[in-house]
Amino acid sequence: MKQNEKIRIGIIGYGNLGRGAELAIQNNPDMELVGIFTRRNPATIETATEGVSVYPYHDIESFQEKIDVMVLCGGSASDLPTMSPEVAKHFSIVDSYDNHAKIPEHFERVNEAALQGGNTAVISTGWDPGLFSLNRLLGEIVIPNGGTHTFWGEGLSQGHSEAVRRIEGVKHAVQYTVPIESVLADARRGKGEKLSAAERHKRVCYVVADKIDYERIEKEIKTMPDYFAPYDTTVHFIDEATFFNEHQKMKHGGFVIRSGKTSADHQQTMEFALTLESNPEFTASVLVAYARAAYRLHKKGETGAKTPFDVPFSMMTNKTASQIMKELL
Amino acid sequence: MKQNEKIRIGIIGYGNLGRGAELAIQNNPDMELVGIFTRRNPATIETATEGVSVYPYHDIESFQEKIDVMVLCGGSASDLPTMSPEVAKHFSIVDSYDNHAKIPEHFERVNEAALQGGNTAVISTGWDPGLFSLNRLLGEIVIPNGGTHTFWGEGLSQGHSEAVRRIEGVKHAVQYTVPIESVLADARRGKGEKLSAAERHKRVCYVVADKIDYERIEKEIKTMPDYFAPYDTTVHFIDEATFFNEHQKMKHGGFVIRSGKTSADHQQTMEFALTLESNPEFTASVLVAYARAAYRLHKKGETGAKTPFDVPFSMMTNKTASQIMKELL
Repeated sequence: MKQNEKIRIGIIGYGNLGRGAELAIQNNPDMELVGIFTRRNPATIETATEGVSVYPYHDIESFQEKIDVMVLCGGSASDLPTMSPEVAKHFSIVDSYDNHAKIPEHFERVNEAALQGGNTAVISTGWDPGLFSLNRLLGEIVIPNGGTHTFWGEGLSQGHSEAVRRIEGVKHAVQYTVPIESVLADARRGKGEKLSAAERHKRVCYVVADKIDYERIEKEIKTMPDYFAPYDTTVHFIDEATFFNEHQKMKHGGFVIRSGKTSADHQQTMEFALTLESNPEFTASVLVAYARAAYRLHKKGETGAKTPFDVPFSMMTNKTASQIMKELL
Repeated sequence: MKQNEKIRIGIIGYGNLGRGAELAIQNNPDMELVGIFTRRNPATIETATEGVSVYPYHDIESFQEKIDVMVLCGGSASDLPTMSPEVAKHFSIVDSYDNHAKIPEHFERVNEAALQGGNTAVISTGWDPGLFSLNRLLGEIVIPNGGTHTFWGEGLSQGHSEAVRRIEGVKHAVQYTVPIESVLADARRGKGEKLSAAERHKRVCYVVADKIDYERIEKEIKTMPDYFAPYDTTVHFIDEATFFNEHQKMKHGGFVIRSGKTSADHQQTMEFALTLESNPEFTASVLVAYARAAYRLHKKGETGAKTPFDVPFSMMTNKTASQIMKELL
């Protein structure tokens, strides 16, 4: 493949996800990272790999002829609701907008902007929403009479870790969300579809603090409304060295299980599972794959907003149709 | 939905798969089964549900205005290579052609016929090829640096069961293919990609015979070249009652595991698993979902042959785009 045939990618936002996208582009030889765009001072950004250019976000419009797809790596709470439509006016984009309840509104805003700019936008990619959504839909399609069960974890929850860190006397803390094994086993037999998140998951915290505070901290965690009170919560106090040795990975994952009957006698179960040592790197890897799809769809003239449901896998791969048919079908 | 808006389906071939398709159509209220077509005498066919019409295969052309999609339920060895192109000249079709090595040729033949007739054909649907293929492709896309591991089972193998039944003195027999747990566990850690099928699976047989023949039969099974000799094979002798009580289900399933690294430190694992109490009913359920996609693609003017790689999941569901975005994304 000639250099000038590569898909030219820009990354907007450089936190864990942006850094993951930078690494993911290196794993995809048909892509080229043109630059990273940030609202911070570009000089303060230390990229994961050498030789990557960092530009101020307000310069993006001058890159319209140089970038095929912008990979948006901002947060769903405050960045993407305005950024995705803004950027989609000028570029094809992918984002990982994950506020499930507001996805339809977000879709409308991005669709309007993308159509206006003649661009293609794939929204809500990643693994949930994203690959998990695909499996929830596929499960309903192939096992129409059944129940769908989504479990998250075992994985580090940023929000819950922060909630623990806000407690007085806590020096360091992480919180893992863990599916309850027996409920997972029930799901595989088609049972328990109506259970709440608290009935399906337990919470495990690792906390560094002074011994004198242990009892109070444990009580404060376990009684914290919404975050921990309704859950089976375990608190482990550990020393600082263990914390830095064993609890630095942003591991995550989960399960989508569909179980139901195709006829009176026959239970059928489909399961999709992820075990991730780095949540942001995997999420970014999915974003980058959908960036390829955005590029291809745009070339085909399919503009406007799309979701993962609208994108055939053949649009996401670097291999040709005849290669995938021969090697993978 | 009005009656006349239903997708009108025909089934060609009435073995286990055709019967599964008949049941699957009942689980999809947007579909209507117009008739079953057979090369046998239609009067000899007993359908699973009442009121289903059975017609001779050679009459299919007279149904061109009455059927939207033909679901082909013949075998890959002798039926589909000629039947799929033949029928695709006159109807949109789906098939489950599963001779992996010959899929590209089959695709070409069906594509030519479908284009000639202005029809849409989705070939090689089901679960392998089909859903497993989708997951093999998705795994490569989102974890480019890694290995893919396909395991089949625990499941009943028709071919191996028949091989055992051909041994003198065997009254009844079934053979289950079983993934070896330790190899499965290795795959989840990204190890063992190059292992052969015999290194990844073991074979377990349940046989009804006279006690006097046990030793000889067990030896004949275990030394049978290709079928059993290279495998870890276990033979259980059981009585007839147990055989008919416990070994009548055509259960099957398996795993597609992709494991690899997104960066030097981070192993990522994706797994898709099926546990099926009825292999033909599940396979048929997938075929019927792709029949909906064939209907939709045809309406959009996308004619010719497609594989599951080319079909977005939004084309396979009965729900609207806004419904799936709201409920499942």
